Amino acid sequence: MKTYAIVGTGALGGFYGAKLQRAGLDVHFLLNSDYQHVKQSGLVIESIDGDFTLPSVNAYDRACRMPACDVIVICLKTTHNRLLPDILPNLVKSDSVILVLQNGLGTEAAIAKILPDRAIVGGLCFICSNKVAPGRIHHLDYGEIKLGAYADGYQATPITQMMAEIATDFRNAGVAISLCADLLLVRWQKLVWNIPYNGLSVVLNATTDRLMADPHTSVLVAQLMHEVKLAASACDRDISEEFIEQMLAYTLKMKPYRTSMKIDYDSGRPLEIAAMFGTPLQFAHDRGVELPLVGMLYQQLQFLNAAALPAKNYLPGDEIY
Amino acid sequence: MKTYAIVGTGALGGFYGAKLQRAGLDVHFLLNSDYQHVKQSGLVIESIDGDFTLPSVNAYDRACRMPACDVIVICLKTTHNRLLPDILPNLVKSDSVILVLQNGLGTEAAIAKILPDRAIVGGLCFICSNKVAPGRIHHLDYGEIKLGAYADGYQATPITQMMAEIATDFRNAGVAISLCADLLLVRWQKLVWNIPYNGLSVVLNATTDRLMADPHTSVLVAQLMHEVKLAASACDRDISEEFIEQMLAYTLKMKPYRTSMKIDYDSGRPLEIAAMFGTPLQFAHDRGVELPLVGMLYQQLQFLNAAALPAKNYLPGDEIY
Repeated sequence: MKTYAIVGTGALGGFYGAKLQRAGLDVHFLLNSDYQHVKQSGLVIESIDGDFTLPSVNAYDRACRMPACDVIVICLKTTHNRLLPDILPNLVKSDSVILVLQNGLGTEAAIAKILPDRAIVGGLCFICSNKVAPGRIHHLDYGEIKLGAYADGYQATPITQMMAEIATDFRNAGVAISLCADLLLVRWQKLVWNIPYNGLSVVLNATTDRLMADPHTSVLVAQLMHEVKLAASACDRDISEEFIEQMLAYTLKMKPYRTSMKIDYDSGRPLEIAAMFGTPLQFAHDRGVELPLVGMLYQQLQFLNAAALPAKNYLPGDEIY
Repeated sequence: MKTYAIVGTGALGGFYGAKLQRAGLDVHFLLNSDYQHVKQSGLVIESIDGDFTLPSVNAYDRACRMPACDVIVICLKTTHNRLLPDILPNLVKSDSVILVLQNGLGTEAAIAKILPDRAIVGGLCFICSNKVAPGRIHHLDYGEIKLGAYADGYQATPITQMMAEIATDFRNAGVAISLCADLLLVRWQKLVWNIPYNGLSVVLNATTDRLMADPHTSVLVAQLMHEVKLAASACDRDISEEFIEQMLAYTLKMKPYRTSMKIDYDSGRPLEIAAMFGTPLQFAHDRGVELPLVGMLYQQLQFLNAAALPAKNYLPGDEIY
């Protein structure tokens, strides 16, 4: 039976970790501000799939107190990735796998520098969930994960036995999971959605439905998606016109949705700008492709992020890439 | 002695009209919501150049009650230009001149369609002034006007005798004024400043100093200015790199400034998007030049404008171009 370390017990880590523990796996949760509460009271999951409570979990406030685990699941916001060089060495064995459940681009490559000899798997989560109180996660919808192994420079690479075993654990825990041989393609595909909606929702103070209902911003969303397609293409990854059409049609049908970046902004948290905008722009730029509209959105978000956050809470370079 | 009609007695029209009347000219003011107040109490000008009061002015609530005048000064916001076809025919004689003191592009061409046989002069006002109460104008700084005659298709055209006479009237009234033979060049030059600062101040809720202090938005401002330069170039008007550098340096030294579009936005008034963004974009597009960043700013402003205004207060096409 595999052991799991959950690094960052919030909307994602709290939800998936609790599901794994409920399925009988040995799960260890790293917490920060919620540590005392969760150590005493455990985790409460309010989910459309059924509520449940774990009155007792293995809670830790410092990585050095945790056991080395088979699978290290990174559920931090990318804005806290500066902590990874201190956290990760405490948690790994020689055959540990690092599973990165974050948006954007670049964390796997950064972890490969910290732990050059460990297997790294990237995961994209298609989920609506929020932490509504310490140790209390509200899971509103969806939940699927897509996994892809990381190989040097994000080259496509076959699905491994270890990925299949992790997938089995998640499926046994009631989490839909799929495996793919091209992590970078999946990351670009998710960025097709994340870049326009996360960015514009913050800059224009809007939910997805309003961005789609307005004739000007619905066109702008599609233009931004096409720039992401161009960037993916510069990385030899093909995003079809049909995929973009599907994303637009899908969002048009969705219930009004406040994006994760908008929730961060409204909560006074730093925005995941580097992972979701900076590194994708850099990937494209390094391959000779500029993305003017995405670049402008990046500049606007940097301004709003800096304006919203006292300097002491957020330093340039907080996201390591 | 020339007679002047002031169409729109606000921050601009109230200020310049009062200066002309104080200098002894025969001035007629068209008002809307402030009509009763100004008819009874006149105009109060609080100016860095010296405060003054005009206890009695020729105030009108309808253009059809006004006398035809020699110079018709259009000081409406461009968002009210839909009113011009009803207003203007009441005010003109065979030799009247229409003086358009508005930002952006396109009003002169629109007026030429309403009054094909009248001389039209465009004017750019470099002034900080606000209407702070009915009939009460606060003039904070500057005040210069640049005039250029309108000729079909905005071609460059010589300075006329009539322009020189108008300039003399304004100078006698204490208003600095300069004449130029290329109205379109002057309009594009002012758009170099107006497009980035007016647009970004609304989208990012910021004064000019904050846009310049942030490393990301200060670059974005310069990028937007360079797109305006490209558009001007497509219209065979040259804006030099030095001019852009001067605008940036000038704004960096200015006191923190809330742009006119931001004041409109904060006051719940419709934004001058068509004149300041839509028509400039169209001018460039018609000449085969696209402005991606200005276009994105236009889309964002349209979204914010529509979101802020109840539909009854503002209809698409309110600005006639």
